[in-house]
Amino acid sequence: MIISPLIEAEAELTHNAKLNCPVVLSTRIRLARNILDIPFPDWAKEAQRREILTTCMESLSALPNMKGGTRLIVEELSELEKQILMERHLISRELSKAKKGSGLVVSKDQSCSVMINEEDHLRIQYLRSGFRFKQAWKSINEIDSALEESLDYAFSSELGYLTACPTNVGTGMRASAMMHLPALVIANQMEKVIRAVNQLGMAVRGVFGEGSDASGSIFQISNQQTLGESEDEIIKRLINVLNTIIEQENNSRHKLLEKDPIKLLDKMGRAYGLLKNSHLLSSAEAMNLLSLLRLAIDLKAIPEVYRSCIDRLYIESRPGHIQYAAKTEIDPNQRDEYRSCYMREQLSDLPSLNFDKVVNRT
Amino acid sequence: MIISPLIEAEAELTHNAKLNCPVVLSTRIRLARNILDIPFPDWAKEAQRREILTTCMESLSALPNMKGGTRLIVEELSELEKQILMERHLISRELSKAKKGSGLVVSKDQSCSVMINEEDHLRIQYLRSGFRFKQAWKSINEIDSALEESLDYAFSSELGYLTACPTNVGTGMRASAMMHLPALVIANQMEKVIRAVNQLGMAVRGVFGEGSDASGSIFQISNQQTLGESEDEIIKRLINVLNTIIEQENNSRHKLLEKDPIKLLDKMGRAYGLLKNSHLLSSAEAMNLLSLLRLAIDLKAIPEVYRSCIDRLYIESRPGHIQYAAKTEIDPNQRDEYRSCYMREQLSDLPSLNFDKVVNRT
Repeated sequence: MIISPLIEAEAELTHNAKLNCPVVLSTRIRLARNILDIPFPDWAKEAQRREILTTCMESLSALPNMKGGTRLIVEELSELEKQILMERHLISRELSKAKKGSGLVVSKDQSCSVMINEEDHLRIQYLRSGFRFKQAWKSINEIDSALEESLDYAFSSELGYLTACPTNVGTGMRASAMMHLPALVIANQMEKVIRAVNQLGMAVRGVFGEGSDASGSIFQISNQQTLGESEDEIIKRLINVLNTIIEQENNSRHKLLEKDPIKLLDKMGRAYGLLKNSHLLSSAEAMNLLSLLRLAIDLKAIPEVYRSCIDRLYIESRPGHIQYAAKTEIDPNQRDEYRSCYMREQLSDLPSLNFDKVVNRT
Repeated sequence: MIISPLIEAEAELTHNAKLNCPVVLSTRIRLARNILDIPFPDWAKEAQRREILTTCMESLSALPNMKGGTRLIVEELSELEKQILMERHLISRELSKAKKGSGLVVSKDQSCSVMINEEDHLRIQYLRSGFRFKQAWKSINEIDSALEESLDYAFSSELGYLTACPTNVGTGMRASAMMHLPALVIANQMEKVIRAVNQLGMAVRGVFGEGSDASGSIFQISNQQTLGESEDEIIKRLINVLNTIIEQENNSRHKLLEKDPIKLLDKMGRAYGLLKNSHLLSSAEAMNLLSLLRLAIDLKAIPEVYRSCIDRLYIESRPGHIQYAAKTEIDPNQRDEYRSCYMREQLSDLPSLNFDKVVNRT
């Protein structure tokens, strides 16, 4: 499998242990860019797309950030490989279904990935574990500036960067955070939060983008507008909204612990018992159970050292990753069996939940 | 509490370990008897009921089987005591709500209990763990014959024993077995079984009699008819029906293990994980989880030595018993917390499920 090294390598996403912001799993910025005088990918002829692919790959390979990275042509990938790349948030569903002449370049540490001929000629993504927009913006801005030296971007002094879809015109930027909000979900507060966030001009999506559900209590929150504000302003506004959500999640945790700690201990205890003892586990259930163990880490019921393991299992429990790990073609039922077996194995040394510290907090 | 010694003593019901019939939890025979020329309890004046109570208690106390037993006057019992006696199957809901002048005599090992002034003057019950109608019939027949020497039963040579409700006239006997049928429940076969059993003139009820649900996959199966057949014939017919059900339950277990063993292992594993790790547990959920551990014992995934513990917890997890064990007044929510704590404690040395033997069986 071409992408095996990517799967075997430790991904940036699981390096969350020391960041001390349990609520924000990861920070992401992506820029939409197009090349001057060539039709957007959906209108371009195959030859034009191939030309873009070659030019962009060459420019990207020349960047220091992309040294030792991986270059992939979408049409050469199997369905499973595309699924795995989606599960790692390295490509979008759109790219996996793109016409011929689409590609992907991923940096060695998987923090930067650039999709070529998705909706736009270039979709540059920079991903950081934890709540680190400053670093993410600095990094992606460097990459963008370096690329701009060798590529002619389609840019209007009036509108900014031109994009295939008008909703991206301007900065072409979408900044987002993946947030773990178990207490707001348990307290049935998410609907209210989503409404408020929408009114502030931000979008809330499930862990796999538009239309996906929020299994594992993970929500992706991003800016809607790309026009009429600078990148700094957009990010500043987003950070303010995210800080408010973090505060609400923390308040919700405290309230749950004060009002009905046993209900919360029960949920975490059951998650522990099921992950350690079930023999069939769907992807959605695994996510929800892991979410509760992650909460148990935040509440000090599980030692901090297990956080990166849990974060890794979030990714490794997804269908494509399970299919890959099984090494032989298996159907969804066998996948649920393999997944539960994998969980039991990976969590075999997880100690019993220690609720003394949790209850003392209240 | 008057009935504390009854609760603290080991009950016959939990002596199932060595009987080698995992499906039948217990065997019960009860006889309805009335005293000549005194109105049935519901029509009798209080003075008449008190006379019956005194006479019957005296006669019962004189029996060798009842030596060292407990004599209780229903109106002297608290609601909690009545609930606990119901949970131990020593009294009926009817007796707990009976008019003044009702009573109960329980033998020392709790295998024999006699309700006085329930629907009939006497309801003699003999209970045996396991599938042992022969012993139960022999014992209850001895008690009945001995009582008949000192009491004048209302008896018609044409109809047999006369009873308050015509459905009991004749033998006045109801024989029943408490059956654990988890595989038939999992395989959705119980509706079919109940229909067939009904057509054979037998009744199927939940663990707490008419109208109660079958939590824990426990069903009580008994004869409907009391007239036109001898006691031996009724018991013989019941045993035949029960043997067929045992066969169907065992077939169902084999089929589940052959067709989809993982589904079964998953159910048992989850039950184990939840009993060992939850912090809130309702009575019904506890019963259902214990049912699956009992199945795990039958399938050799848990050592046989734990059977009596599981059977004991079936009783001890019920609301009245939990309230008693907590020693202080607690509300239903606290009861669920106390129950899960009690389960974790009682099952703390239960070893991990060993499925090697289960899977080898298939």
